[in-house]
Amino acid sequence: MGNTSGNKKKIINDPVHGFISISHNILFDIIEHSYFQRLRRIKQLGLTDIVYPGAIHTRFQHALGTMFLMDEALKNLKLKKQNINNDEVKAAKAAILMHDIGHGPFSHALEHSIVNDISHEEISLLMMKKLNEQFFGKLKIAIDIFQGNYPKKYLSQLISSQLDVDRMDYLRRDSFYTGVSEGVIGSGRILNMLNVKDDSLVVEHKGIYSIDNFLNARRIMYWQVYLHKAVLSAEFMLINILKRAKVLAAQNVELFSTPALAFFLYNNIQKVDFLKSDEPLENFSLLDDFDILSSIKVWTKHKDLILSDLCSRLINRNLLKISLKDDAFTKEELGNLIRTLKLKLPFAAEHPEYYVFTGTSENHFYDYSKDNINILMKDGSVKDISLVSDQWNSSLSNFASKKFFLCYPKF
Amino acid sequence: MGNTSGNKKKIINDPVHGFISISHNILFDIIEHSYFQRLRRIKQLGLTDIVYPGAIHTRFQHALGTMFLMDEALKNLKLKKQNINNDEVKAAKAAILMHDIGHGPFSHALEHSIVNDISHEEISLLMMKKLNEQFFGKLKIAIDIFQGNYPKKYLSQLISSQLDVDRMDYLRRDSFYTGVSEGVIGSGRILNMLNVKDDSLVVEHKGIYSIDNFLNARRIMYWQVYLHKAVLSAEFMLINILKRAKVLAAQNVELFSTPALAFFLYNNIQKVDFLKSDEPLENFSLLDDFDILSSIKVWTKHKDLILSDLCSRLINRNLLKISLKDDAFTKEELGNLIRTLKLKLPFAAEHPEYYVFTGTSENHFYDYSKDNINILMKDGSVKDISLVSDQWNSSLSNFASKKFFLCYPKF
Amino acid sequence: MGNTSGNKKKIINDPVHGFISISHNILFDIIEHSYFQRLRRIKQLGLTDIVYPGAIHTRFQHALGTMFLMDEALKNLKLKKQNINNDEVKAAKAAILMHDIGHGPFSHALEHSIVNDISHEEISLLMMKKLNEQFFGKLKIAIDIFQGNYPKKYLSQLISSQLDVDRMDYLRRDSFYTGVSEGVIGSGRILNMLNVKDDSLVVEHKGIYSIDNFLNARRIMYWQVYLHKAVLSAEFMLINILKRAKVLAAQNVELFSTPALAFFLYNNIQKVDFLKSDEPLENFSLLDDFDILSSIKVWTKHKDLILSDLCSRLINRNLLKISLKDDAFTKEELGNLIRTLKLKLPFAAEHPEYYVFTGTSENHFYDYSKDNINILMKDGSVKDISLVSDQWNSSLSNFASKKFFLCYPKF
Amino acid sequence: MGNTSGNKKKIINDPVHGFISISHNILFDIIEHSYFQRLRRIKQLGLTDIVYPGAIHTRFQHALGTMFLMDEALKNLKLKKQNINNDEVKAAKAAILMHDIGHGPFSHALEHSIVNDISHEEISLLMMKKLNEQFFGKLKIAIDIFQGNYPKKYLSQLISSQLDVDRMDYLRRDSFYTGVSEGVIGSGRILNMLNVKDDSLVVEHKGIYSIDNFLNARRIMYWQVYLHKAVLSAEFMLINILKRAKVLAAQNVELFSTPALAFFLYNNIQKVDFLKSDEPLENFSLLDDFDILSSIKVWTKHKDLILSDLCSRLINRNLLKISLKDDAFTKEELGNLIRTLKLKLPFAAEHPEYYVFTGTSENHFYDYSKDNINILMKDGSVKDISLVSDQWNSSLSNFASKKFFLCYPKF
Repeated sequence: MGNTSGNKKKIINDPVHGFISISHNILFDIIEHSYFQRLRRIKQLGLTDIVYPGAIHTRFQHALGTMFLMDEALKNLKLKKQNINNDEVKAAKAAILMHDIGHGPFSHALEHSIVNDISHEEISLLMMKKLNEQFFGKLKIAIDIFQGNYPKKYLSQLISSQLDVDRMDYLRRDSFYTGVSEGVIGSGRILNMLNVKDDSLVVEHKGIYSIDNFLNARRIMYWQVYLHKAVLSAEFMLINILKRAKVLAAQNVELFSTPALAFFLYNNIQKVDFLKSDEPLENFSLLDDFDILSSIKVWTKHKDLILSDLCSRLINRNLLKISLKDDAFTKEELGNLIRTLKLKLPFAAEHPEYYVFTGTSENHFYDYSKDNINILMKDGSVKDISLVSDQWNSSLSNFASKKFFLCYPKF
Repeated sequence: MGNTSGNKKKIINDPVHGFISISHNILFDIIEHSYFQRLRRIKQLGLTDIVYPGAIHTRFQHALGTMFLMDEALKNLKLKKQNINNDEVKAAKAAILMHDIGHGPFSHALEHSIVNDISHEEISLLMMKKLNEQFFGKLKIAIDIFQGNYPKKYLSQLISSQLDVDRMDYLRRDSFYTGVSEGVIGSGRILNMLNVKDDSLVVEHKGIYSIDNFLNARRIMYWQVYLHKAVLSAEFMLINILKRAKVLAAQNVELFSTPALAFFLYNNIQKVDFLKSDEPLENFSLLDDFDILSSIKVWTKHKDLILSDLCSRLINRNLLKISLKDDAFTKEELGNLIRTLKLKLPFAAEHPEYYVFTGTSENHFYDYSKDNINILMKDGSVKDISLVSDQWNSSLSNFASKKFFLCYPKF
Repeated sequence: MGNTSGNKKKIINDPVHGFISISHNILFDIIEHSYFQRLRRIKQLGLTDIVYPGAIHTRFQHALGTMFLMDEALKNLKLKKQNINNDEVKAAKAAILMHDIGHGPFSHALEHSIVNDISHEEISLLMMKKLNEQFFGKLKIAIDIFQGNYPKKYLSQLISSQLDVDRMDYLRRDSFYTGVSEGVIGSGRILNMLNVKDDSLVVEHKGIYSIDNFLNARRIMYWQVYLHKAVLSAEFMLINILKRAKVLAAQNVELFSTPALAFFLYNNIQKVDFLKSDEPLENFSLLDDFDILSSIKVWTKHKDLILSDLCSRLINRNLLKISLKDDAFTKEELGNLIRTLKLKLPFAAEHPEYYVFTGTSENHFYDYSKDNINILMKDGSVKDISLVSDQWNSSLSNFASKKFFLCYPKF
Repeated sequence: MGNTSGNKKKIINDPVHGFISISHNILFDIIEHSYFQRLRRIKQLGLTDIVYPGAIHTRFQHALGTMFLMDEALKNLKLKKQNINNDEVKAAKAAILMHDIGHGPFSHALEHSIVNDISHEEISLLMMKKLNEQFFGKLKIAIDIFQGNYPKKYLSQLISSQLDVDRMDYLRRDSFYTGVSEGVIGSGRILNMLNVKDDSLVVEHKGIYSIDNFLNARRIMYWQVYLHKAVLSAEFMLINILKRAKVLAAQNVELFSTPALAFFLYNNIQKVDFLKSDEPLENFSLLDDFDILSSIKVWTKHKDLILSDLCSRLINRNLLKISLKDDAFTKEELGNLIRTLKLKLPFAAEHPEYYVFTGTSENHFYDYSKDNINILMKDGSVKDISLVSDQWNSSLSNFASKKFFLCYPKF
């Protein structure tokens, strides 16, 4: 890859999928844009490399991977006589390329710390609209597909549903980079089994075991990677660090910070601010992992003891301990820990909530309440996977998918 | 992996080698040390991900991988009746774990920009000595092996020679993460073919094709990855950015910077300074990719036009063009480009050397002048690979391994 | 590998596990024996390559693979302070190497066609005893372990239980060679999680998701590969071909056949015959896939129309159709098909059972009634996986693991 | 895959390439034909599994793999604006599918043992013509392409030239199944670099390192696999077994044999016979590995001592020793060995040539005298790889590619 020639038909080496072609000029232009290049500097799995050192792949790579899988999916659907024209191919690929463009750094943890009541999907849409202006309206269909407003609904489902190419790429990629072989899925086979019925994405019946495997892999990746205890602990510590920094900023305490991060620390930015002026989006589009971590590294020497202690712990991997249970922790348990904390870390006495806290984590590997994975039966009818699979029948809803956690320092 | 329990016998998931065991407490202690944890934040291949987006693996992963291969190598040598005791195993693994500990961020490019006349090997040794103090002298044998002062010379060769486990890991790992399949080597087979003769590492004769392949892979990785045009261009731009920043710093111009980076920008640190006080090493041990890139991102808006322009180009992947040739570029070629530069980018008129420059790049895949790869013949004699291999005989020295480059902006 | 040198410490290239070392002379001697070499000519998955053309790996490769995994398993248990001496290592590796030595060709289908009331385990034991004689009693401990008579029970469990290295190798290998990625298991991680409690093999609690994945993979491989419709059909056709050939042989009809196969066709060999003389075992030890398929190829031109028709269908992949259901097929369904058969293939009128037949197939991915997979809880207690796993709790027994099939020709 | 439904658009699982689609009915019909199904029973690498137990893949799999790569190659050329219509795609895929259809069992060794002066290419062509008749002339273009008679010459080059998809598949596949990682090539990248210039296949200049790697891999596979000493020895033994069997057959000695093999043993079939009647081709189309090996197994007990001894040695892997040298063996060396032979194996006294013999083996990894690999330079000119590559320049012709061997029994 390289922008040194005028030719925009590029091929990119991807360790997961092999060679990824950039098939249309507009896709090349999106990739070259600074909004998209920013994704090079945002890790897909945030702090997960604290546990799995290989998991340092970026949102940039993931976005390219989804574009590749979208291409495969559309080719397969065309072979099955779906009528999809070149404009739709181009738009669907543009849409999936941009589907995560609004993610901030460590977004799983920081989605509600850096900005307040605006989701990454909303920011993605704001950015897509900006890009659409700059590209003279060429992204209109892509945005329609992204928003679910395009007539062919199944195109939107390929971007966001329980069987979208987003999940297929991230499961394969996260499994590849963490080295957790249990997360390997047969994406090639699933894509071959996709079809469309009544404008909706379905999986042909003979693909049912691949779906079983897909859900299993997803469930295991949740427990083993996405909700790994040490990762959860690190993420909560990161949230608390940002929370503390914002408290200090509100008190006008000086904090080392890149200008883009300072903008969000010292101004309490809300959704409404994004709509009022360009400044929030401009600053947001400059933020990446480097702003956060370079600041945290400096804060390890800040005079606020809570801030510097939390930052040192995170940087040097001296994480808070975390306990997981199926039922809630009691007030007594919390109370005892807080008492010990005040003895051992007296500087935390006024704000024990930074060190001792509880909450829940949930495994969303299959969500009943949302759109389903639908199986196309041999008789042409369509049924939810939970009604068809031996494995998941009746039990999908029973899976213990929620756990309670309690964090506290090693004393 | 996790430091939440007292048990130091950990297993780490590695996408390249599978499960890597931490076999001795001292190895765990090295890994947990902030010097070593810093390597998590230094990419092995610097700016290479500009071309190969997957190449974002870190020196941390590489160091663990070399420890794994060292273990394999020592097991194989023991099977061949080499007498290696447990202390030596522990020391050799510690030494390889720390062999790159003194690398700075983007060290391939910045080795002589951030600090002046001190190599990363020298800094590694300084850090090892500090660690040895902190670990009560437990690293003495490791340091001896690292320095080549230990009686069993072949242990040092496993750490640094033309067939060391350093190269075996980085070829496999760089190939894996870039997706360049041509770089795949049969490290398993090479390790099986290693032996010791007269205290020196040799390869048994039947392993000769694996060595041919190893040298081929290495040569190809040089041209295709390590010396890739766009990567070279990016690296030279990075060097020029740091050079410009230091010039400005010398003029007391204000530059956004993390404190650790500022220390090196505003003080002209030399080897002698490392010997005089702890401050240089302390600051160096805080420096990583995050300091560099977060600063460069901010400098894209600096009032010095050369600095901000170069930084914008690098961050937005608008690289200088680069031409490669087998012979040197002429003064006329340079002169013409400089004249055009002054017309098109007038702010560069006084310092065209930041934009138009020439130099050489070399492919060091096999270095005659250094220690050789020695083949153990069936009759017990030992010969240099270049005398034995059909492929490399007489021609190793002839390989065109040097190219001239010329960089300049797209006008 | 090669027997041209005197050195018995060989290394074998295995596409699945990499390099497999033969660590002891006795293992080399077993491998070189004609009993074991015969396994080179017996495919692990019988006729499965009719559906998955890559699935032509042999029992020879599988046996070597299990020896490799046994070595890994024992190494891990030793790290966990299990006291296992070198004789036990040697014996456990010999035992697993020979665990399938008594398998005949297409044994999944033909176990009760070629010989009558003797299992492959019994023939394996007969062969082991012969080998033990020839090797001067050196296999005594190995045979004890194989039979479950050795004091350290967990060694026997590594050879035969629901978590034995047999399954771990065949799942990985079958998945690799069929290309069914859903069957990939994390054998490396499972082996790392094994431990021993009260002389029994257990899995440490944190390995529970790997076990979930192992059971999932196993279940999927059953439906997608081992019980694949077309494979079942081919296997039943093979059974019927042998049955028919034996009927003709009993009538003294001449049949082309290798001498070893002729021995079993023309003599009705029972278990008792194996005990009375050496001849049955001698002949059995000559039988492999080549005897069966070369004969069947010739029988495609036999004058018995049922035999030649069935053989032609099998060789030219014109298989019987097969229907699967959760409940039994009715007599009416069978009767109708038999009536059609008599019209369309009149030569089959007297023996419709060769063409139209029904039965059941079962998925034994986890067998409640047999030894369990036991999980070592954090409190030191041991529980069955079905009581611990979210996924399998209460539901393992409910899995629809039995299906009814009906075979008949495409008319 | 399965022929149980009427749908001919099948997908086949391939461990090397993933999912292979059968895109046209005629391709399905070729695959289902007994000529092609026979390839399921012919191993690609003959006796190589004696050394590499995993190398038991079949010509059937290889043929499907080449069809897959042909599809990829044609897709890439179309992207580069080559005008290739659907009939040509279909024909090129049919042609590559059938390119090896005339191979007999162990054809590398037996090409001139079973039939006399007719090559496998000629038999392939005879079979193609038969198929063309049966398929109503639908294979005409395919046959033209196969024979090099079709106007677009580059299509023929994709089937047979130094960069054909035949080699690309077999290098990858042989490397995969042997486990020899040194043979891995970047076929994806090579296919991406292909182009057409003046109706001839060329490689774009930036693909030159992939070609270097391709030639390296090929060279190493020759020495490490195709010309492996033990494999050569086994192949010569097989040739001698067939030679001996034919001598005995000419003397009307009875030999167990399948009818198809008997036809060739007892009749001295020449090319002219193939042209005179259908019988030779009919019998040839029934021959596969199973005929050869099942007969050899029975011959281990033949009363001719030379035949039975050679067969026993081959089946039980007690191979002749083989020495390799760069220069010829002397008459004295041969004479001495023959004298020892007569003492040790007196039954061989009259025919020592079955046990002691010499000859040459050649590594044809790049053949100067044949069509070249052409590189498309940046200036539009075309040059032979040997003029462009640093590695191969001037030296390709110097590679020691011929070795002398001497076979003899271990005495």
